[in-house]
Amino acid sequence: MTPGGAGVAPRHPDRPHPVAAEAVPAATDPAGDDLAAYLRAQATEFLRALRAQREHGNGAEGAAEAGRALRRSARRISAALHTFRALLDPAWADSMRPELAWVSGTLALEHAQEARLDRLLLALHRLSGSTPVPVGAVVHAGAPSPVPERGSLTVGAAKAGALLERRLTLARTRAHSAALEALGSARFHAVADRIALLASDVPLAPGAATAGLGPLAAAAEDRLAGAVSVLPLVTAGDPYNAQALVHGLSPDPAPHPQDGPWHQVRLLLRLHRYAREIPHPAPADPRLRQAAEALTRHRDAAEAAAEAAQAARTPRIAPATAYALGVLHADQRHEVEAARFTFQQTWQS
Amino acid sequence: MTPGGAGVAPRHPDRPHPVAAEAVPAATDPAGDDLAAYLRAQATEFLRALRAQREHGNGAEGAAEAGRALRRSARRISAALHTFRALLDPAWADSMRPELAWVSGTLALEHAQEARLDRLLLALHRLSGSTPVPVGAVVHAGAPSPVPERGSLTVGAAKAGALLERRLTLARTRAHSAALEALGSARFHAVADRIALLASDVPLAPGAATAGLGPLAAAAEDRLAGAVSVLPLVTAGDPYNAQALVHGLSPDPAPHPQDGPWHQVRLLLRLHRYAREIPHPAPADPRLRQAAEALTRHRDAAEAAAEAAQAARTPRIAPATAYALGVLHADQRHEVEAARFTFQQTWQS
Repeated sequence: MTPGGAGVAPRHPDRPHPVAAEAVPAATDPAGDDLAAYLRAQATEFLRALRAQREHGNGAEGAAEAGRALRRSARRISAALHTFRALLDPAWADSMRPELAWVSGTLALEHAQEARLDRLLLALHRLSGSTPVPVGAVVHAGAPSPVPERGSLTVGAAKAGALLERRLTLARTRAHSAALEALGSARFHAVADRIALLASDVPLAPGAATAGLGPLAAAAEDRLAGAVSVLPLVTAGDPYNAQALVHGLSPDPAPHPQDGPWHQVRLLLRLHRYAREIPHPAPADPRLRQAAEALTRHRDAAEAAAEAAQAARTPRIAPATAYALGVLHADQRHEVEAARFTFQQTWQS
Repeated sequence: MTPGGAGVAPRHPDRPHPVAAEAVPAATDPAGDDLAAYLRAQATEFLRALRAQREHGNGAEGAAEAGRALRRSARRISAALHTFRALLDPAWADSMRPELAWVSGTLALEHAQEARLDRLLLALHRLSGSTPVPVGAVVHAGAPSPVPERGSLTVGAAKAGALLERRLTLARTRAHSAALEALGSARFHAVADRIALLASDVPLAPGAATAGLGPLAAAAEDRLAGAVSVLPLVTAGDPYNAQALVHGLSPDPAPHPQDGPWHQVRLLLRLHRYAREIPHPAPADPRLRQAAEALTRHRDAAEAAAEAAQAARTPRIAPATAYALGVLHADQRHEVEAARFTFQQTWQS
């Protein structure tokens, strides 16, 4: 798939011409040229999604899909810049990545708040026995089942639901405004311009066109393996180890420090999975996909639990509301523990 | 161990003389005579414990041990009367059992309230991160670890702990008074007199002395197997199935109906284990012991969860207190789920 000669890579206009590299035999390993093609494709995808979003305007279903595509390509470009930095113009890559993180972070927030509210309301109904839980099935509160009506809730659960809805709808509205503002900003236009440039010309480092990606992809996998190796997997594989709720009533309202290593593995697993997409997605590895889903569920449940705890600090709420939020918090922390168990089972398999 | 002849069983004075049964070959199965010997021994143990308790008076450690021995023998006599009713004078057995249930129930309550408070305070500390949880160990809140000081708790957890302490100390004091009153009552003296009689003379049914206990013990085991067969063991064996908390916020404050079948199995397992003690304890079966422990933990956690929910209905408590009680309730319901998982694992092994 890779032309064996040097100097065939598209060159960034203000980059030095790559030095003539020795001709390497065509390998099965992807090389810098494949990286360049991947980055061009992702940049093109980003621009296409951006156009689609502008055409659809706000609120339409198409706009949401375009937003997802925008974030998806931004994440992939950013990941490639990180994993294969050695093959790219380092100054360019280093200046590009924070901008891409800002874009995907800003655009992701509205969706995250919406998903969090869905998760919490669904859990409130499950805890009220008003949604049938499939027997033998682990509950994935993030699954797209319809949120039922609030008629069957206790006063406390109903009030907790209303409080969460107020808080998260407000947060979502703010996130929506922030995303709109970002999309119209000079900073975003500068990013879009740079991505338009990337769609035609990738600033590879000298000699990178024919350099293999293998060692850098392997290094990403090693970083993942290293991060997994420090996870408490023995504990996580022991069901009902009661670790996730150990700080459930801790005086420290900050996110649980014990979650950090798991969040870190989630990011490294994403880098590893994206690296496997070059030059084209490797054969699907259901284990990696399931592990990634477990870590996403871990993050979502941890954030939902934190939201329930924060909501319970609202002044002057009724004790019944606070009680329901306490049950909800503990429930989501157990989802955190369940997600760790699922990850452990998937990873060891 | 069993004399092969008929008519050697001690006879109750007001019982008809057992009809001369056919001489059966000495079997390895225990027979009615062994049952009589067992009941005499348990009755003697009951009387010994009663004497010890009266000597020790209230509150001493020896009195607590004597109380445990009293309940232990009362439970065993009652169980034998139930399982082997067909070999006993049925009118006598039927009139004796409610009295024994009253004795063991009344005497057990004080200890139960004390253990419940320990369990809940320990859980509050665990949830506050103030007690180190052994890594990889399932938490048994009923384990005799010292309850740490309250300094490290949040305001909510500390207030919840104080509220539970007030409620359960009051309940325990009442249970203590009720037990003292019961021990001094005419009803109790009548029971003690009947047990004194039992210590020398067991009212076997005609021909029971040589009848084998096997079929009746097997029937008890069958009842246990039947009750286990309707438990949702497939769900219970799926870790983090989120079933135990399904009614965590249900409008119905009654004990969870889903717990009933498990409590029933706990009682039937006890009957089966006690039946295996005749003529002397069968070789220890760690599986049965572990299963029984899991079901006891199931019951204790279910009752502790109900207590947390009830305490949260105290008028005019602070929201922070209610929140802590909500977390505590959910935590104990997860202990319920964990106990079901342990039971399933033990039973299938």
